Amino acid sequence: MTDDSTGDDLDALAYELDRAHVFHSWSAQASLHPMVIAGGAGSTVWDHAGNRYLDFSSQLVNTNIGHQHPAVVAGITRQAELLTTVAPVHANLTRGRAAERILDRAGEPFSKVFFTNGGADANENAIRMARLHTGHDKVLSMYRSYHGNTGAAVVATGDWRRIPNEYARAHVHFFGPYLYRSDFWAQTPEQESERALRHLARVVEAEGPQSIAAILIETIPGTAGVLVPPPGYLDGVRELATRHGIVLIFDEVMAGFGRTGEWFAFQGFGVVPDLVTFAKGVNSGYVPAGGVVIPPQIAASFDERVFPGGLTYSGHPLAMGSIVAALDAMSEEGIVENAAEIGRSVLGPGLEELASRHPSIGEVRGVGVFWALEFVSDAATREPLPAAGIGAIKTALIERGLLPFTADNRVHVVPPCIVTPDEVRTALAIYDEALTALDL
Amino acid sequence: MTDDSTGDDLDALAYELDRAHVFHSWSAQASLHPMVIAGGAGSTVWDHAGNRYLDFSSQLVNTNIGHQHPAVVAGITRQAELLTTVAPVHANLTRGRAAERILDRAGEPFSKVFFTNGGADANENAIRMARLHTGHDKVLSMYRSYHGNTGAAVVATGDWRRIPNEYARAHVHFFGPYLYRSDFWAQTPEQESERALRHLARVVEAEGPQSIAAILIETIPGTAGVLVPPPGYLDGVRELATRHGIVLIFDEVMAGFGRTGEWFAFQGFGVVPDLVTFAKGVNSGYVPAGGVVIPPQIAASFDERVFPGGLTYSGHPLAMGSIVAALDAMSEEGIVENAAEIGRSVLGPGLEELASRHPSIGEVRGVGVFWALEFVSDAATREPLPAAGIGAIKTALIERGLLPFTADNRVHVVPPCIVTPDEVRTALAIYDEALTALDL
Repeated sequence: MTDDSTGDDLDALAYELDRAHVFHSWSAQASLHPMVIAGGAGSTVWDHAGNRYLDFSSQLVNTNIGHQHPAVVAGITRQAELLTTVAPVHANLTRGRAAERILDRAGEPFSKVFFTNGGADANENAIRMARLHTGHDKVLSMYRSYHGNTGAAVVATGDWRRIPNEYARAHVHFFGPYLYRSDFWAQTPEQESERALRHLARVVEAEGPQSIAAILIETIPGTAGVLVPPPGYLDGVRELATRHGIVLIFDEVMAGFGRTGEWFAFQGFGVVPDLVTFAKGVNSGYVPAGGVVIPPQIAASFDERVFPGGLTYSGHPLAMGSIVAALDAMSEEGIVENAAEIGRSVLGPGLEELASRHPSIGEVRGVGVFWALEFVSDAATREPLPAAGIGAIKTALIERGLLPFTADNRVHVVPPCIVTPDEVRTALAIYDEALTALDL
Repeated sequence: MTDDSTGDDLDALAYELDRAHVFHSWSAQASLHPMVIAGGAGSTVWDHAGNRYLDFSSQLVNTNIGHQHPAVVAGITRQAELLTTVAPVHANLTRGRAAERILDRAGEPFSKVFFTNGGADANENAIRMARLHTGHDKVLSMYRSYHGNTGAAVVATGDWRRIPNEYARAHVHFFGPYLYRSDFWAQTPEQESERALRHLARVVEAEGPQSIAAILIETIPGTAGVLVPPPGYLDGVRELATRHGIVLIFDEVMAGFGRTGEWFAFQGFGVVPDLVTFAKGVNSGYVPAGGVVIPPQIAASFDERVFPGGLTYSGHPLAMGSIVAALDAMSEEGIVENAAEIGRSVLGPGLEELASRHPSIGEVRGVGVFWALEFVSDAATREPLPAAGIGAIKTALIERGLLPFTADNRVHVVPPCIVTPDEVRTALAIYDEALTALDL
């Protein structure tokens, strides 16, 4: 490439290098046609040629603070000039400050943070802590869930991504509440909650409470469909875990740090877990980072006994600098409050209104900036819209300048927490236009 | 903290925040007394008060290019201002350029890179590829090894860190060559090599070649003691893997990118594996990153079939920017050649000379800037020096301004690849002085 390279040249080069040399996640490689993304700001991304897209995917639901927030970029640059990397065994002020800020937002009783590179190894280490703390092996998690791609995390995962990866033992899966496609023949949220709890209690009983280390659940299952739990469900799981001395782990990798309009999604339900795992929103993914938030009682299990887990980049200074900057900016700019308000007064009502005019939208679920539109080919039978239908919606949205997040028969509406009412209205008009054009 | 804060105040604050809020890797938490590290440059790190240490640990053997190399810091800053994060599904020019540079150094036949967050998930995904490519389950790895902390990686690991984490199936361990403490009653390198190969062939035969997906080995086992394989060993493993259609994975997380004085350690042995995993040295850990280097034959297994692995930060632009900058600077400045030359003419001979004057050093092993001093309490019986002895050496080195890497009864001498002859001579004098003071 020369200085005369046009944006189109650069897009072509990026595409060509990608197809030649980059092996992609969760994909058959031959059929990929990746979009080139060169830059972004706030709720928008663009390619080299200058084509702009409203990013209502937040990439993988991680850019909670939007793209290229200047305070976070500055935090990264500042730490890059000071010290990028240090071994976990040493102490580093930026790491301590990042832990302090996370704990401040998590509230009582949490006192320590174990830092990882992302969400998968956060769950790996939470599982490890739970197993050693309790002396038990089994980990219960939902069929409709995703907890990461590494050996234990991917077997804790309930969705299809577990099936080709089942090399770990002592993982048991149960059904969670999902009224729209109830596994419990329920008709009301109250019934779904009560029956899902009865089912979980039966699984605990049948597996043997004395063999169970942890119940690991996404506070709101995300990729599985933004399955907001019905009233009473999380309280019931908390009560069950407490009764049997089971460690309750809430995976807030996707739901945490503003996504639901709370710092942590569990705060919206008034239920406190024993361990919390996080990644994504903690620094909007600007530098790979994740971790486990730990209360004194579990941390104390490893005061005298070695914790047998670790990683080179645990508490990586550059990542820590981005966490400090992101959390400070989110507080100063009221970004979590914005996500709550957007959900309550613009996005939630707007999506309900959209659904009222498009019969293919079987259900709208969500809170804050964390929503799913569930598409059906028949409103009565709730038959999921086939993959080709979702593919057509995706194409129609991209053509109209909106980058969507799709999964199975759903479009997840997951803009950054800094999204403005105007951007939401633009997006709602694009969804409407695309669905109208497709006669859906 | 105010603007009047002294370095001592900041060190005290960093220490206090760490002890209150940071949960550490691979440790009992109560007894930790972490050193505060605030900054660094080249082969040196310092605390806030200005105490300086020659870093002969390279932290966790990752800062191959030294601390705060200006070209890599500039690469991070440049990419931070452009775009920090993008989902793996999209294409990004910096990612393509990073893949291209890695493949250029790996040579034939490698054609694609799958990017991860670090070494553990690189091994996770290499194992996944091998299992699906062959249709077999078992993974053979060495008892003396470390492959990461996640569910499959930690069970592939052979050292003590596996024992409390054995929740994955189909992992089998074998003994590798280690003449100084031979598991094969060998007396010469040739005998050790031949017998270790015979042992591995017997394990393959006894486990059943048709059940084996991969042989996973560190090209030079690192944390296990810088166990440079004897002549012929890697050739023999290669031959065995080829004969049975087993995928040969070389874990070069620690050995790769200059550490041995080669871009990849395997290049020093003239043996080409089927998959290579990397992390650390690829960008000196300035941004968390790792990956798998893949040849066309294995990549093609996933052309039409979905590869069931992935992660949010796969091919993370900020990490990719640091890789491009680090590899370019390493080439331009002859950093890999420097590591080779330092090993050959200064560090290797210097350590041999040190050993000749200190009977507690039972063996010196290594190449490039990748060395181990094995300490014994009795040269004849080779009884390992007890932990307290290694602790005393560590303290004596730190007091004299050298930050060491210790493991079991060993001090690993692992400075950055940019280390100068003068720095090596200073370090050799400090090792000598410390051992003399301790009468070792």
